[in-house]
Amino acid sequence: MTIQILSRVKSFGGWQIQFEHASAVNNCTMRCSLYLPPQAEQHAVPLLYWLSGLTCSDENFVQKAGAQQHAAMHGVAIVCPDTSPRGEQVPDVAEAYDFGKGAGFYLSATQAPWAEHYHMDKYICQELPPLLQNEFAIEGAIDGRQGIMGHSMGGHGALTLALKNPQRYRSVSAFAPIASPMNCPWGEKALTGYLGANRETWFDYDSCHLIRQASGHKFHLLVEQGMADPFLKEQLKPELLTAACRAADYPLTLNERPDYDHSYFFIASFIGEHIAFHARQLADG
Amino acid sequence: MTIQILSRVKSFGGWQIQFEHASAVNNCTMRCSLYLPPQAEQHAVPLLYWLSGLTCSDENFVQKAGAQQHAAMHGVAIVCPDTSPRGEQVPDVAEAYDFGKGAGFYLSATQAPWAEHYHMDKYICQELPPLLQNEFAIEGAIDGRQGIMGHSMGGHGALTLALKNPQRYRSVSAFAPIASPMNCPWGEKALTGYLGANRETWFDYDSCHLIRQASGHKFHLLVEQGMADPFLKEQLKPELLTAACRAADYPLTLNERPDYDHSYFFIASFIGEHIAFHARQLADG
Repeated sequence: MTIQILSRVKSFGGWQIQFEHASAVNNCTMRCSLYLPPQAEQHAVPLLYWLSGLTCSDENFVQKAGAQQHAAMHGVAIVCPDTSPRGEQVPDVAEAYDFGKGAGFYLSATQAPWAEHYHMDKYICQELPPLLQNEFAIEGAIDGRQGIMGHSMGGHGALTLALKNPQRYRSVSAFAPIASPMNCPWGEKALTGYLGANRETWFDYDSCHLIRQASGHKFHLLVEQGMADPFLKEQLKPELLTAACRAADYPLTLNERPDYDHSYFFIASFIGEHIAFHARQLADG
Repeated sequence: MTIQILSRVKSFGGWQIQFEHASAVNNCTMRCSLYLPPQAEQHAVPLLYWLSGLTCSDENFVQKAGAQQHAAMHGVAIVCPDTSPRGEQVPDVAEAYDFGKGAGFYLSATQAPWAEHYHMDKYICQELPPLLQNEFAIEGAIDGRQGIMGHSMGGHGALTLALKNPQRYRSVSAFAPIASPMNCPWGEKALTGYLGANRETWFDYDSCHLIRQASGHKFHLLVEQGMADPFLKEQLKPELLTAACRAADYPLTLNERPDYDHSYFFIASFIGEHIAFHARQLADG
């Protein structure tokens, strides 16, 4: 597996890199962004994943979150995958912003025509780590010293991937996550389309369900939520996450932030606290 | 004069605001962005101008520079004007990124058809300050407790506006400024188009000339320059600025940054130092 570097720009003493590579699991070419902090020139560094929300590519977080300064301070790399498979041969629903390209929902599709390309969960958990380990100076990608975080659809992705793969991640956090895709319009549309109408097949992609089923290792979940978020009541429903964590005695810190919305201005305001939260756990042991 | 608020988003405890208003000097509707730090809810705060470069609107800096955290820390507001007049009635050269809309060059055009609308220098020095003072909780806009900074074409703008209006500004800095528009292709094209072929009329918009002519008050100029900037040799020419300052005994700190390019990744990496530099001078007296 080889990568092609598209750009490499100096940022806060490190390098912001964009590359593309052939993806076997998504059966297409994937684009990906990676920030390497200055420490990576001296020694291998741990890795933090950022999973973006609906309509985003690998670039939104890179340009708008202001995360590089914190990654440089703590000496962690941040990888930003795209949010879906891409390319002319990949099926899409051109008029929908919440299904198809830009809306992969971090799952493995089983329904035609999506199943041929839409496997963002396997892409992030299985395909990216060895590629990053082999191509860049990163220590966490294979030994499991990784953290994962995301926003909205990507908050759902971060929570579900961590809950199902506790051996792969040491830390997890989310900004305004879709707390329970089984119980909101965005989630029901995506799960129906990618997985079919049988709701039994959906449980594996619902954070609240996974939290209720959790046994063994428990993460300390850190969740940030703006209280002026226009999607709060209909789509995000943090109260379902709170209820699931309470029922399962699962550790959750939910920060409700008055006046903040769903935008990258909200993310930028608190990304420093999240990266510090991950860095503490990535440094342990 | 009234403004219309287009958006108001919480950011680092303050508010990122976008508004539009009728501009008399530009003879069109102008859009403008303003960050009000949390301190503005308690008392009037000083004001810092950011002037953007070619192709930018009022939004690039707001979304990509990561400046709000520093404005919030120091208690200064940051206003980001657009880079040219806008609207269907405003003349443009559709195929040119470096002339017409998005390329106002912070001057007052004298040539048809540009003279009817292109007066970005008067817009920033004369029209915006009372508007900001009247509409928002800002103290510096009229009493002259303002700072000004910018990037590339906007670095040229910040330097020339400060040098010509020392009573209006307390501090000035620039990222990768066009140091001498009279002596580079971008500048010669713009000055010829907006002012005509008589180079005598250009002197008033050339930082190096203004520095050589400076008498009375002298600013301490802070200039940041990436050494991997693709426009360094042909367009920006910081060596002309260095030579002018040396000849005129004008105070200049030029930070040459290895590996950095012309992008907002460069700006974001050093914007904190620039805002601190301005805040110190805005706080004095």
